[in-house]
Amino acid sequence: MVLVNGVDTVHLSVQDRGLHYGDGVFETLAVRDGEPLCWARHMDRLRAGCQRLSMPCPDPNQLLGEARQVSQELAHAVLKLMVTRGVGGRGYRPPETASPTRVVVSYPWPDYPRASPLQGVHVRVCNTRLGRNPSLAGIKHLNRLEQVLARAEWTDPDIAEGLMLDTEDRVIEGTMSNVFMVRERCLLTPGLGSAGIPGIMRALIMETARSMGLEVTEASLSLADLGSADELFLCNSIFGVWPIRRLSGKPYAIGPLSLRMRQRLVAMGVISGPA
Amino acid sequence: MVLVNGVDTVHLSVQDRGLHYGDGVFETLAVRDGEPLCWARHMDRLRAGCQRLSMPCPDPNQLLGEARQVSQELAHAVLKLMVTRGVGGRGYRPPETASPTRVVVSYPWPDYPRASPLQGVHVRVCNTRLGRNPSLAGIKHLNRLEQVLARAEWTDPDIAEGLMLDTEDRVIEGTMSNVFMVRERCLLTPGLGSAGIPGIMRALIMETARSMGLEVTEASLSLADLGSADELFLCNSIFGVWPIRRLSGKPYAIGPLSLRMRQRLVAMGVISGPA
Repeated sequence: MVLVNGVDTVHLSVQDRGLHYGDGVFETLAVRDGEPLCWARHMDRLRAGCQRLSMPCPDPNQLLGEARQVSQELAHAVLKLMVTRGVGGRGYRPPETASPTRVVVSYPWPDYPRASPLQGVHVRVCNTRLGRNPSLAGIKHLNRLEQVLARAEWTDPDIAEGLMLDTEDRVIEGTMSNVFMVRERCLLTPGLGSAGIPGIMRALIMETARSMGLEVTEASLSLADLGSADELFLCNSIFGVWPIRRLSGKPYAIGPLSLRMRQRLVAMGVISGPA
Repeated sequence: MVLVNGVDTVHLSVQDRGLHYGDGVFETLAVRDGEPLCWARHMDRLRAGCQRLSMPCPDPNQLLGEARQVSQELAHAVLKLMVTRGVGGRGYRPPETASPTRVVVSYPWPDYPRASPLQGVHVRVCNTRLGRNPSLAGIKHLNRLEQVLARAEWTDPDIAEGLMLDTEDRVIEGTMSNVFMVRERCLLTPGLGSAGIPGIMRALIMETARSMGLEVTEASLSLADLGSADELFLCNSIFGVWPIRRLSGKPYAIGPLSLRMRQRLVAMGVISGPA
């Protein structure tokens, strides 16, 4: 089901700035029993993104009503919210008073292998790089061609995700996930000041790890750094935590910390999906 | 008037990948007496962009028919063509057989000051930078948030354009134009291998300058380099050539080469707009 500005429709104005320029932001959430998970955190990021684009942010309560409307009676689903700067005339200049477009869509739960959270996944390194631009880094905006090109690099269903480096060979994130490495009981994850999106699950993991007494560091990480990891794992709001069993052919142990972290997040009720 | 896949409508599917990811390309052309200018060159760039995105390109003849349909009886107009990868499911991965969406729109001619081509324009330097990414550089794709943020930096109607630097302080282009400098009878313009879009007017100017016996070089240019110019000018397919009279407060001479170049392009019939 799709709601556009609260109306049940499959259409959008062809003059929407979301189409012309990717002038907007989005959120992807897990839905369990008709209710979106981690709603407040997603709304915080949506609001921050709108602010950085100097765009009005819709009322979170209105969005929540729409989210529930498209999610009702769904046991497990994926919810996507898009907020664009709305309809505009020709040219990059934003209208002085933008009237944002809200798009709220529910999708069936993806058919990820049930075993991935426990048995881990195979991951490759993408050739497509992430450009570095502090003006856009951290915003979950609609300019996603880098991810599209990276995801188009492989069709092998045994490869679950691709890691992306920036143009200076730093590991940043997966095409649809963030990445963590464990080394000597420290948790390390790439800093995202120049590229990448700070995931909601990433933040939850960092907080949880600290509450478990682990040291958590955002760092500049190379592929060689990842090679020295005791454990590697991916995370996002839909699949939760996936240990990396193999990266570019090199095997990694599915270590205790990845599994324990996932158990904690399941216990906190922030990971959805069929059991 | 708007045609979407040949149909007179103002709507697009809310599942179009152009909206979700900016997964597509566009062209902006001048129309004179119902006919788009430099059609073949724009089609070459469109085709090259589709190829780099591994996306089928619509038949140029079909697009020309649609372009003429939305432009008919218009003495002067702006034509925008968008080609997206079409409707897709959730996720970055492109569908194996994409069915592109064609959007063809005509707009009224913009109300640029009549005097700009002869008396020059004021230009600022934008704070928003262009990220560097060879995977996307040169493609006139729909990921245009950098330009939106740059164009939002000023509202002063006396400033006609903003120059954008990349993240390594190199001058790349204007938000909607390319830039040239003249120094000792040489024409210099930024190389666009890491960021920027090679404009159709830019290519015409480079070819014309060479045919006039001038040396033309693509170079890595800083703002300091621009400061040493005898003349500076901007170009695009709509306004043609605008000499820069003032850049960040520093005055420049409106030199003979900028004016002569414009006369040549007018004589070639590649610049439109009310006289």
